[in-house]
This record gives sequence, structure tokens and C-alpha cells, in this order.
Amino acid sequence: MTIDLEALYIDLHRHPELSFQETRTAGVITRHLTDLGLEFEEGIGKTGVVAVIRNGSGPVVWLRADMDALPVEEQTGLAYASTARGTDPSGTDVPVMHACGHDMHVTAMLGALETLSATRDEWSGTIVAVFQPAEEYGAGAKAMVDDGVLDRFPRPDIVLGQHLTPLPAGKVGARPGTQMAAADGISVTLFGRGGHGSRPHSTIDPVVMAAATVMRLQTVVSREIDPREMGVVTVGSIHAGLKNNIIPAEAKLELSLRYPNDAAREDIMARVERIIRAEAAASGAEKEPVFTMDHSLPPTINDDAATARLKAAWGRAFGEDSVVDPGMFTGSEDVSWFAREAGVPLVYWFWGGVDPQQYADALAGGTINEDIPTNHSPFFAPVLHPTIERGVDALTVAAREFLGAGAATGVAATEAAITEAGA
Amino acid sequence: MTIDLEALYIDLHRHPELSFQETRTAGVITRHLTDLGLEFEEGIGKTGVVAVIRNGSGPVVWLRADMDALPVEEQTGLAYASTARGTDPSGTDVPVMHACGHDMHVTAMLGALETLSATRDEWSGTIVAVFQPAEEYGAGAKAMVDDGVLDRFPRPDIVLGQHLTPLPAGKVGARPGTQMAAADGISVTLFGRGGHGSRPHSTIDPVVMAAATVMRLQTVVSREIDPREMGVVTVGSIHAGLKNNIIPAEAKLELSLRYPNDAAREDIMARVERIIRAEAAASGAEKEPVFTMDHSLPPTINDDAATARLKAAWGRAFGEDSVVDPGMFTGSEDVSWFAREAGVPLVYWFWGGVDPQQYADALAGGTINEDIPTNHSPFFAPVLHPTIERGVDALTVAAREFLGAGAATGVAATEAAITEAGA
Amino acid sequence: MTIDLEALYIDLHRHPELSFQETRTAGVITRHLTDLGLEFEEGIGKTGVVAVIRNGSGPVVWLRADMDALPVEEQTGLAYASTARGTDPSGTDVPVMHACGHDMHVTAMLGALETLSATRDEWSGTIVAVFQPAEEYGAGAKAMVDDGVLDRFPRPDIVLGQHLTPLPAGKVGARPGTQMAAADGISVTLFGRGGHGSRPHSTIDPVVMAAATVMRLQTVVSREIDPREMGVVTVGSIHAGLKNNIIPAEAKLELSLRYPNDAAREDIMARVERIIRAEAAASGAEKEPVFTMDHSLPPTINDDAATARLKAAWGRAFGEDSVVDPGMFTGSEDVSWFAREAGVPLVYWFWGGVDPQQYADALAGGTINEDIPTNHSPFFAPVLHPTIERGVDALTVAAREFLGAGAATGVAATEAAITEAGA
Amino acid sequence: MTIDLEALYIDLHRHPELSFQETRTAGVITRHLTDLGLEFEEGIGKTGVVAVIRNGSGPVVWLRADMDALPVEEQTGLAYASTARGTDPSGTDVPVMHACGHDMHVTAMLGALETLSATRDEWSGTIVAVFQPAEEYGAGAKAMVDDGVLDRFPRPDIVLGQHLTPLPAGKVGARPGTQMAAADGISVTLFGRGGHGSRPHSTIDPVVMAAATVMRLQTVVSREIDPREMGVVTVGSIHAGLKNNIIPAEAKLELSLRYPNDAAREDIMARVERIIRAEAAASGAEKEPVFTMDHSLPPTINDDAATARLKAAWGRAFGEDSVVDPGMFTGSEDVSWFAREAGVPLVYWFWGGVDPQQYADALAGGTINEDIPTNHSPFFAPVLHPTIERGVDALTVAAREFLGAGAATGVAATEAAITEAGA
Repeated sequence: MTIDLEALYIDLHRHPELSFQETRTAGVITRHLTDLGLEFEEGIGKTGVVAVIRNGSGPVVWLRADMDALPVEEQTGLAYASTARGTDPSGTDVPVMHACGHDMHVTAMLGALETLSATRDEWSGTIVAVFQPAEEYGAGAKAMVDDGVLDRFPRPDIVLGQHLTPLPAGKVGARPGTQMAAADGISVTLFGRGGHGSRPHSTIDPVVMAAATVMRLQTVVSREIDPREMGVVTVGSIHAGLKNNIIPAEAKLELSLRYPNDAAREDIMARVERIIRAEAAASGAEKEPVFTMDHSLPPTINDDAATARLKAAWGRAFGEDSVVDPGMFTGSEDVSWFAREAGVPLVYWFWGGVDPQQYADALAGGTINEDIPTNHSPFFAPVLHPTIERGVDALTVAAREFLGAGAATGVAATEAAITEAGA
Repeated sequence: MTIDLEALYIDLHRHPELSFQETRTAGVITRHLTDLGLEFEEGIGKTGVVAVIRNGSGPVVWLRADMDALPVEEQTGLAYASTARGTDPSGTDVPVMHACGHDMHVTAMLGALETLSATRDEWSGTIVAVFQPAEEYGAGAKAMVDDGVLDRFPRPDIVLGQHLTPLPAGKVGARPGTQMAAADGISVTLFGRGGHGSRPHSTIDPVVMAAATVMRLQTVVSREIDPREMGVVTVGSIHAGLKNNIIPAEAKLELSLRYPNDAAREDIMARVERIIRAEAAASGAEKEPVFTMDHSLPPTINDDAATARLKAAWGRAFGEDSVVDPGMFTGSEDVSWFAREAGVPLVYWFWGGVDPQQYADALAGGTINEDIPTNHSPFFAPVLHPTIERGVDALTVAAREFLGAGAATGVAATEAAITEAGA
Repeated sequence: MTIDLEALYIDLHRHPELSFQETRTAGVITRHLTDLGLEFEEGIGKTGVVAVIRNGSGPVVWLRADMDALPVEEQTGLAYASTARGTDPSGTDVPVMHACGHDMHVTAMLGALETLSATRDEWSGTIVAVFQPAEEYGAGAKAMVDDGVLDRFPRPDIVLGQHLTPLPAGKVGARPGTQMAAADGISVTLFGRGGHGSRPHSTIDPVVMAAATVMRLQTVVSREIDPREMGVVTVGSIHAGLKNNIIPAEAKLELSLRYPNDAAREDIMARVERIIRAEAAASGAEKEPVFTMDHSLPPTINDDAATARLKAAWGRAFGEDSVVDPGMFTGSEDVSWFAREAGVPLVYWFWGGVDPQQYADALAGGTINEDIPTNHSPFFAPVLHPTIERGVDALTVAAREFLGAGAATGVAATEAAITEAGA
Repeated sequence: MTIDLEALYIDLHRHPELSFQETRTAGVITRHLTDLGLEFEEGIGKTGVVAVIRNGSGPVVWLRADMDALPVEEQTGLAYASTARGTDPSGTDVPVMHACGHDMHVTAMLGALETLSATRDEWSGTIVAVFQPAEEYGAGAKAMVDDGVLDRFPRPDIVLGQHLTPLPAGKVGARPGTQMAAADGISVTLFGRGGHGSRPHSTIDPVVMAAATVMRLQTVVSREIDPREMGVVTVGSIHAGLKNNIIPAEAKLELSLRYPNDAAREDIMARVERIIRAEAAASGAEKEPVFTMDHSLPPTINDDAATARLKAAWGRAFGEDSVVDPGMFTGSEDVSWFAREAGVPLVYWFWGGVDPQQYADALAGGTINEDIPTNHSPFFAPVLHPTIERGVDALTVAAREFLGAGAATGVAATEAAITEAGA
């Protein structure tokens, strides 16, 4: 391997960048692409990078890795922990951390590209490697599509992608059908009337309005959604006021809604809005709440046939024990925009980054939730090995499964498989 | 009048400064003191200024004006509205506004000093003019006391001060006994466990913990304080989270507690703490909430005899109709530290800044709370006249009432009155 | 004394009766009135009794005692504790207890009537003794008025009444002006949609709707009423559901609102209604809540002059130390209907029933609220002596103060005093 | 058919009886059993009835129907609507209604027994028909087991049962594995301190304590249970207070918890208890809440093989279109105690009672939840036909499937199937 993947990962981890600000990350990527002698373009969807390996006739396989980090203050205590800060869209200075593993996604992608590039005689077709910005805003894939990525590069026959997750390192898994939930991000501004903290009767207190709203929103999941169906209403942020003795004029909430399919969307949105408006009315608000859609992500649905085919390929490559059913994830992704817009199948999978012994101990002790930091936690810290290697290999095996055979094998069968997968 | 008080007020209003940062304001003050030829010292209690007028034997009367502004974004639409910004103690960039009228306090004080200075033959004794910083943090008076203000300048026989308030311009008023409530400012950090917004079950949601806490805190006033007694529990700020899809690890609340006397303090504090700890326990918090006292202000208690005497003097000067009983205020002040530490009487009064016609209309329409912006409101906007003039005169009359008579009158009677007032 | 007042009290205490069901109590009263040879009528306002002592020309003084008990399960552990049960207006079987001391009111009234009857030569005028039913429903005085009590008996020149309270036994007190708050009793039915407890999504849960409503109603007092003004919003009962696994279709709340004057009524009612309607909307209720006024009691306002006169009389009779300012009470009374309807002055006072040593200990320990059971508590248990004696004497002294003098003294002065009191 | 099943159903519907009080119902059953000439015993598990049809060698098949009704006030407006009342365990007079369809269960069972009795030549083996009391309390099956039902009658090889549900009439369905959730019924008493409604500060208000508890309990489902897993926390009843102006001393809640498997029980119980205790602490309660387990129902788990076999038999009998997957139900049952205790397979299924056109309209309009009354609703009203017929036939076909063949067929194969089903 020409690229020192461990050093690359540590460098990316130390220098996380917020969504649509991944300029240093893009620079690292293009330097390596240049070293590998690959064709690429920058600035797709603002900060995205797309590389292409053309290798004769055959299927076009898109591989996707996302690049952005999160406004989280790292608390892992790692020697290479991030101390970076950034400016969020509101202009606030915030800590930044790769708390979702996108640094590992980029690392694995570059490793896979080196491997695939070095083994061109073993496969045929075209690889399009998509380094996507702003997945955390649910906006990067759409931005690349809007920027013409599907027209400016060979259109995919299949889209593949992977995500690091708190499974034991070495494990890889996908499930057919809904793999990840749909999600909407909504900002809400509640309007009260400000005044002195000692004169509540001359104000309309937006802090109490916001608190009552948060408590009432719990009932959407607890009382209004069928207990057998998945639904999440998270208020991820609440902000009001600057000082203990000033009752502010406004409060801001940011909500994340999760649901399993497009049909559930209208219901959950209507319920959330009904409650927020009624709680404003309960406070006697003189102005209606204002709602802003920050993003809306469709469910991530894996193609049944392609998923089955890929799991079989991994089983052969890594052993059946290494291939798991990760279950449906309540988290969300924007990777499916590429496949939805192109009308082609998608497989999106997970691979593990937790020390297997630590995982086994937590499982035995019933302390998975307490002991194993999840994505977005300030303690999220994948072990480097074999996480890096398995990420590279999972992507390489997947790409090869859907590319044509090389000189020694026939392309026709592979193409047929792709066609079938898309059915 | 040498000083153009309207221009001074507008200048101060345009350039508000946060607590303990009143350096420009102090500069404006000292420039005028210099112009008036008065003796003064700067940097008392960090940014405070103290001027002295020594005029023969007689009582020492302290006059106090506070100087700081608030992190409020002005929305008055005035031509001279503030667009200033500042950096609050947490390092955040915030808008700044004189939303509490301290600009008018400084203006009236300088006007009174010019008047008193120009009429030295009519009174005898010593005037100590205290320009105090950081009243809004409840910290400035204490800082000046800690900086030796009572020893470095002639000790007071009486302390006088005034505050602009939403009474009709022209009115002035005080009440004997408790004039303003005691207040504590408390910061609370609630600890949850962060994680991905789609996986609430792997987290302890501090947003819900904070919301439940705010709702429960309402019951201190609604259920636990005698309905006949004053009590306020305001949550003036609530902050948690940076993004809709990350459940944060912490939430921060800032509380302002108000109560009428020292005896009530222990009870209200115990109740607030009991609820906050229990709500953390209800969430299954793994770490106890952390409480920080930001400030603790005693009740502002007017001396009975001195107050009566002063109201009579105003009645003679302005007409009985102009002197009102403003009632007890639920707001708080740190002015009483000067009198408490010196063991002398205090009179602290209010004067009005609202257009009298607008006030009368609002009163008739029952819309005082809706139409008349209170202190700390982003719409707080006193009319300039006669507010400035009445502020100057109220202070001048008050000072003269407790100073000795001039050449033509006897000092003894006045001194006797002061002694009596302190009884 | 012919009547054994201790035995009378114990008998009444053992046999409490709910409002408008005081038939046994009325029987006990009329038996004693007969023994005393007094003229009386029964069945006024359903179960009320009115006795008259005509004793020559002079003022007509009304004395009022209420008779009804409460649906409270006595937990005093007294030998003479009530084990009675009754049927409330909804047809429910409930425990009954004299938890408000009306048994003592009746006892003191009969004692006073015996005394006044035995000393006819010492006073002149007319005494009308009103034994009123259903004070606890706030309905008995109105019922007697509606039944013509003011026309069927000599109209009052003044109305007097007294209430047992947790002051030390021996103390008696009244305050001029508002002595007790106004009160409204409101029943609210909230409408959800019932269903199986395991299928919340097919229902509209009225239990959650009611709980959210109760929590939000706390903010009327905590945020919307001036902290310096008295206001109480109590939800005294909440009822919904019959079984853990059935989500009911409705929930019922009973509210008690208290406020100091008629002007506050509209505001507090509007706020309560606004919150209840909005919380129903937050639940997505398909039917608006239904509000029923159960009673509406005016504030109890003592005549200034008559109160001063009475306190002076008690001071002469019992010693100045025995006469206290009980402060304003947040509880309410319907006694003022008699005076309001007749357009004459009212004095309504309190006398104590707590063992003085126990009271002093609780005061010293700061445990008044914990250790001294208040009216309506299941532990309410006045000491018998000197509570009975002081109740008799307070009423006797009061009646004598406003009646005419007897043979040896002039009537004119007393009549003048009454006229003055009514001004 | 000798029995007029429609008349029988209407009679049962008009005369519903609460749990363990089904004496009239048992009388109706035994009269029909006598008419059919069947052997039976009464008073098993207090009010249960067990009939036996012995028909040569072969499997023993238990059929179970539950008999009790609910404290619901019928609002169907049907000509045969119940106006019955009963006395619940607390001694309260309540309305009673067959709001869960057990009247239909009994009707279908008697119809099936007549059919099976009349066709004895077509099958061999033993039928045990169990008319169970008190399913609604989750107590009847256990009571029958405790009363020796498994020893006093032929032990089952398989247990079969059915429940009426809001599917279209004509439909029947079951699913392998968890068919119904586990459930616990818990009563909770919260302790405050009572007092007068106007003096909240002298009390600890249990109404507010209960309301805060209900609101906080919503977070168990909304925040603490994996969104992909089933969980329900219903507060089915809340009761406190008798009068608006008395703050009561206690509040009572009844909770129903639902979860999919035994493993989830400990977690959900711990969470509920944690919240209830913490909310009592937030109120400053002087006494810990008291918890009482009212019942605890295991999950209802259908045997995989037997379920598949039965669905195939129904498909042959009713057409494939009539056999549906009803999905997992969040409701609970105690039928599984018979199978659990005997260690034999269970199949428990659902059949529909809704007019098919009404159902289709509601489905098309997206108003299933609004328009189709569910079990336990006061509007629950199955259409009589073909509901009765399909109930009889579903049970008959099921019994026959697991009984031996008659004279013309071999028994061995059927016995083998049973053995296999139990594996």
C-alpha cells in the first residue's frame, strides 16, 4: 500500500471540518488521488470531489464516502483527539470532531481506490468514487446532484456506500429493504414577550412555552404512534435567553423526526405542528411559531437482490461469521439521493469499529448502551485495526462483485447480475 | 447648564457597555467631571468612578448612579437605537442595549452634579457621587466596597439613589420599608448522556430533563409559597444542544429567584434545589446537577423617616400630584450594599420615563402590560423630556434635603434629621 | 350554663353531615333552641335554622354559624373521631368529617344564645341567629337569601360571624378590608377518545390531556399574576378511568380559584380557560372542554369602623394580647351574601383552636405548616378548652357591642355607632 | 342448529357481568350445555365452567372462551345495548358493557360445541371446552389453573382460543411467534399532604404530583425504549380529591405496561418506578409511593408449526382471501397460562366483526382509527353476521384439525402433527 492509511486516518481525525467546509479534507483527498494517478474533479456540490477509474467496458459502480464532521467537543482522551473549532451556520464558534466516523469512510475509500487501481487486470468497467460533503446536514448528496454529478460523470448501474458503526471490528452487515429511517430536521422559533425577570406577569415567558412544548412532544411517540412502528421525535437543541434576570422574547428548538417510510411523514409532521401551535396558544403567544425545514432525508432502502449477492460475497471473503444482520437503523442518510435520482439499486452497509473484546464484555454485562459510545458521542473512538483494513476490503469486495470480470473471465454474467439487482 | 444633557444621553444610549466593561462610559463621565472641575477617582471596583464635592462641614450624602447595559438587541426603532455588540463572560458575542435606563441614571447624575456644584452657597457638607459598574450582575456595588470605596472617600451619613421606571414622565416615588426584592442568580448544569438523535434509548436526554425541570419549578410559586407573599422563580435562560440530530450531553439553566426578605431565602433555595435534583433523578442522570451562585442581592429597604422626609420635599418642589407610591418592586438592586456596609439609612426611589398621554391611554385601555415596555425589554425607550429634567431635579432636591443649609440657614436641624432618619 | 357545650361539640363532631344534608344537626340545634325557649324556624334554605331573640327596641344584630361538614376521612385518632359516611352530589359514598370546625361554630353559637338569652336585662334590640347550611358548597347563604331570610326575619343592621382557625386557643382577630379572598369553583370535563390501554394510537388519551393541563395551569400563578398579588389556582380533584387497561373517554377536573377582589376575576378566569382549551387542542381533542361554574364567592370585606370597634371591645374583655391581626385569608366564605344583600356592614373574624404550647413549639421550630393541621385537613382537631369558651365569649361580646344598652344605659349611642360602621 | 345463536348473543350482550361475577353468564352456558347433553362442571376458578366431549381415543384439544365484561358505559345506541351496572372491586357502582366481545366468544364456543357434538362420527379424541372468567383482570386463567383445571380434566395436547377484533367480518388470522404482548397492571398510590384549597403552601399537592408523574412517564416510551421495539406505558386511571376546595392527601394511578418479551420486563418496570419515586421526591413527599401489582400477563406466543397448519386448514375451508396476518397485537391475554402450565403448544387467533363495506370505506378514507371502534371502546359493536358464523366455524375447523380422524380416517397422522406442533 502506497498510502499510510493509519497516518491518513489520524490526520483526518485531527482536522475535522464542518459540513460544506471540508476544504482541507478535499485537499488531502486530491493529493492522494494525484499520487495514485487518478482522474478527478473538485468543487462538486461546493466541496465534493469525484474520482473516476475507467477500465474498459462493463458496469459503472459508484462508491460513496462522506467527509464532514460534527460540532461536538471530543472527550475521547486520545493522543490524536481533535481540538479543532469551527464556525457553524449561525456564526457561532463551536468545537468540531469526527464523531461519526467519516474520517474512516474517507480513509477506507482511498485504500480501496489504491487496491482497485492496482488490480485493474482483474476487473473491467468504471468506478466512480464520490467524496461527498455535508452528509450531517442531509444536504451534500442533493447539492452534488444539483451540481450535475449524474451528468458530468458516467451514470451508475449501482450505488454502494458504507458507514462505520459500533459493531465489533471485523463485522460487516446489511439488510434488504429499509436499512435506515427517513428523517426531517425542523427549526422552530417560539415567540413570547420579553421583560424583566422579576416581572413575569408583564411578559409571555418563552422558556416555559418551550419547556411545555418539549414535554408535550413526547406524547407523539408515547401516545400517537402505533407502538409496533418506529418513530422518533428528538428535540436536539433548545436555546432561549442570555441572562438569568431577563425573560427573553423568543425560544428556538431544533427537532429531528424519524420514521420508517414516506407514508408516516405527513402524520408525524401534522402532530408535531399541532402540539407546537397549541402550546404557543396555551401561553397566550401573540405571534404564531415559525417552522423552517432544515432537511428532509428519504428512507435508505437496500435493493433486495443486490444485498443478498453482496452478503454472499463478503461471506466468501471474510467468513460467514463476519457477516451480520445489523437490523434497521433509526438514523438517516442522504446517500440514497444518488440512486433515487439515477433510478438504480443501492446497497448501503455498516462495518464495525469497536474492540471485539470490549464489545463482548459489554454484551455479557448488559452494558452496551453505557459502555460502547455511539456515533455522535464525544467519546466515539474506533480502534484503528482491523477497522481500517475491513473498511478497505468491504468496499473493494463490493465494488468487484458488481464490476465486470477481468481479462480471464466473462463480463456478461456480472452485467446480468446488475440488471437483476435493479429489478 | 453647561452639559448638553440630551446629547449626553443619546451618546450614552448609542454606546452601551456590558457590566465591568464600562470603560467608554467612564471616560465620558470623567471628561464631564473634569469640565465641571470636580475631584474624582477612576477604576474603583474595576470600572467605577467616584467624584467628591467638599463644601464645608455638614452631612456626607452619597448619590449613586449605575452605568452598565444589557445583552439585549434593541428593537425600539429609534434614530439613536443601539447597534452595539459586546462579549459576554462566556465569550459569546451578544447585542448590547441600555434596556434598563442606566444611561439616564448617569445623565441625571451629571446634571445634578453640575447644579449642586453651581449652587454651593446654598448648602454645606460633602457630596460623594458614585458611578457604579455592573449593577446588572449584582456585583458592582460589592466590588466597589471590596475596593475600599467606604474608606477611600468620606463615609456616608445617608445613601441616595434613583431608578428610571415605566411610570409617567414627571412622576417620582418611593415607599418606606422593602422597596425592592432580594434576588439570587443561579446557574445550573444538568448532566445527561449524549448520542445520536435517532437513538434516544442509548442516551439520557438533557433537553427533556431541562424541560421537565422548568415545568416543575413553576410549582414553587404556584404551590409552595404563601399566596399572600411575593416570590418569583424565573428561568431566564435555557441552553442545550447544537444540532437537531445530536442529543447533547448537558443542558444549562440560569435562574433568578426573588423574595421579599432574608428569611424567605433558605426556603426558596431549598425548594429549587430539591426539584432540580429530583428531576435529574427522574431522568436517571448519572451525575448530580451542578449549581453556581452568580449573585445574591439583599432586599432594598428604605429608611422610614428619611423616605417620608424626602417625599415631603419632592411634594413641595414638584407638587403633591407628582409624588406617588410606586409599590414594592419585584426587581432587585445592589445599591443597598453601600448603606448596609456603612450602617446608614438608604432611600432608593423611582422616576418615570413614559409619555404621560401614552400611559393614560394604556391605563384606560387596560393594556399597560402590553403597551408600555418595561425595563429589560428590547422596546424600552424613555421619552427624553421631562424625564431628563425630573431625574436631575429629583436627585438635586434629595441631596439638598439631607445636606446642611447654606450660609443663610442653620446646619444643626439638618444633621438632626439625618440622625433621626438612621434610627 | 344549661347546655353541656363539650358534650354538644363531641356529639356534633361524631355526626358530621354533608352540605344541604344537615338534618340531624338541625335537629340538635332546634332541640336546644326549644330548651332555651327561643322562637325559631326550620328549613330555611333547605336545612337552615333561624332563631330570634326580641328584646325591645334597638339594633338588629345577625349572628351566623354554618353547619356542614366535608368529605374527608378523619385521621385524628381522637376518641370521638368521626366514622361517618355520606353520599355526595354525584351519588358516591364518601367519608365525612367536621374538618373545618363548623361543629365548633354551632356549639359557640348555642352557648352565646344561652348567655345572651339569660342576660336580656343588660341589652336591648333583636338578635337573629342564623344556622346556615352548605357553606362548603358556597351555596347555603345564597339559598337562605333566595328563600327570603331577609324578609321573613328582622332585617340586620349588622352581620357578625366567626370561624375557627389554627391560631392558638384564646386568640381572636379580624382585619379591616379584605378578610377573605373571593373564590370560584369550576368543574371541567375534558374529552378524549377511549380505547384499549395497549392501543394508545387509536385513542386520544384524556389522562395525559388532564395531566398536561394541570401542569400548565401552574403557570397562571407562577408567570401571569403579579407576584405581589394574591392568586391561587388549585385543582382539587382529578378523575379519569376505571381500569389500568382501558384508556377512558373523558377526564374531570375540579378547580378552585382565589383572588383578592372582583377586578381580578375576569383575568384569572380567562387565563384558566385559555390554557384548558389549548391543552385540549394540543391533544387533538375532537370536542371542546365543558366548563361548569359550581359556585362563585365574593370577597369577604370587613367594615373598617365596625372592625376597629369590635377589636377594642375584645381587648377590653380578653386583654389586648388576645386580639391579633390574623392577616388576609386566602380561603373564602359565603357569609357576606347576607350583608351584601341587606346593604349593611359585616364583621367576620377568626378565633384559635390550637393548643398554645404546641403552637409556640411549632413556631419556634419553624414547623407550623408541618405540625399544625389546617382547616380541611384529616388531622384538624381543635383543643376543646378554652376554644369553646372563647368562641362563646367572642360572639357574645360582639353581639353586645352592637346591640343597644340595657335598662341602665342609653341605646342612642350604640345606634349611632352602627350607623357610623355602615358608612 | 338447536341453539338460536343470535338470540344467545343478544341476551349475553344485554347482561354483561364484571370479572369473577359471571354467574348469570355461567347459568346461560350450563343451560345450553345441559340441552346439548354435554358433561360439565361449574365453579372452576370461582365462576368458570368446563365441558368435556369424550369421543374415543385421540388427541385432547382444549378450546377456550372468556366470559367477562368491562366497566364501560355503552354508547352504541344499539337496540340491545347494555344498561347494566355492577360493583367493581373497590365497591364502586359502575356501568358494565361487553366492550371486548367476550359475549361473542361464548356464543361461538357454544355454536362450535353443538356442531362438534353433532358430528362425532367425523372425529375422535377429546374436546375440553373452557369457559374462563376474569380475563379482563388477567386473573381468570390463573384462578382455573390454581383450582386444578389441568388435573381435574383431560390434560391438553394443544390449547386453542380466539378473540373478536376490528377486522372485517369473515376474516380470520394468526401469526406465528409473539401474537400478543406481555402486560403488567400496577396500582400506585402517591402521598401528599392534604389541606384547604386556598392554602397550597401548607400542603403537598398530590394532584400536581400525579400530573407531573403522568407527563414524565411518557418519556419511558419516547426516550428510553428502542424506537424499533414495542413498548406501552398507559395510565388508564387517575383519581384524587373529592372537592375543588380541598387539596387531597393522596392520588391513585393505575398503569398498564406492555412489552414484547420477558426480557423487557425488568427494564420497563425499573424505569417506571424510578420516575414515580423521583416525582414524589420533586414534590417533597414525606412518604414513598406504594406500588401494587394487579396482574402480570406473559406474552401470548403461538406455536410456529401449529399456526401454519391451522392457517392452511382455514384457507381450505374459507378461501385463502379470508386468512390474514393480523400482525402482533399490543394487547395481552391470559390464555397462555393453560398452555404454559401444561407445556403444550398454543394457537390463539383473531376473527373480524366489522361490516366489510364500512371497513373498506374507512381504509380508503384513512380513518380506520376514527371510524372503527376498537375493543374496550363504548362504541364497540360487531355486526352479527357473518361474525357469529365465522366464529363458530373458525373454532370448529381448528378443533377438527387437531383432533383425530373419525371412523373413515386414521388417527396416527393427526397425532403426529400434534407432536410436531409442540416441538
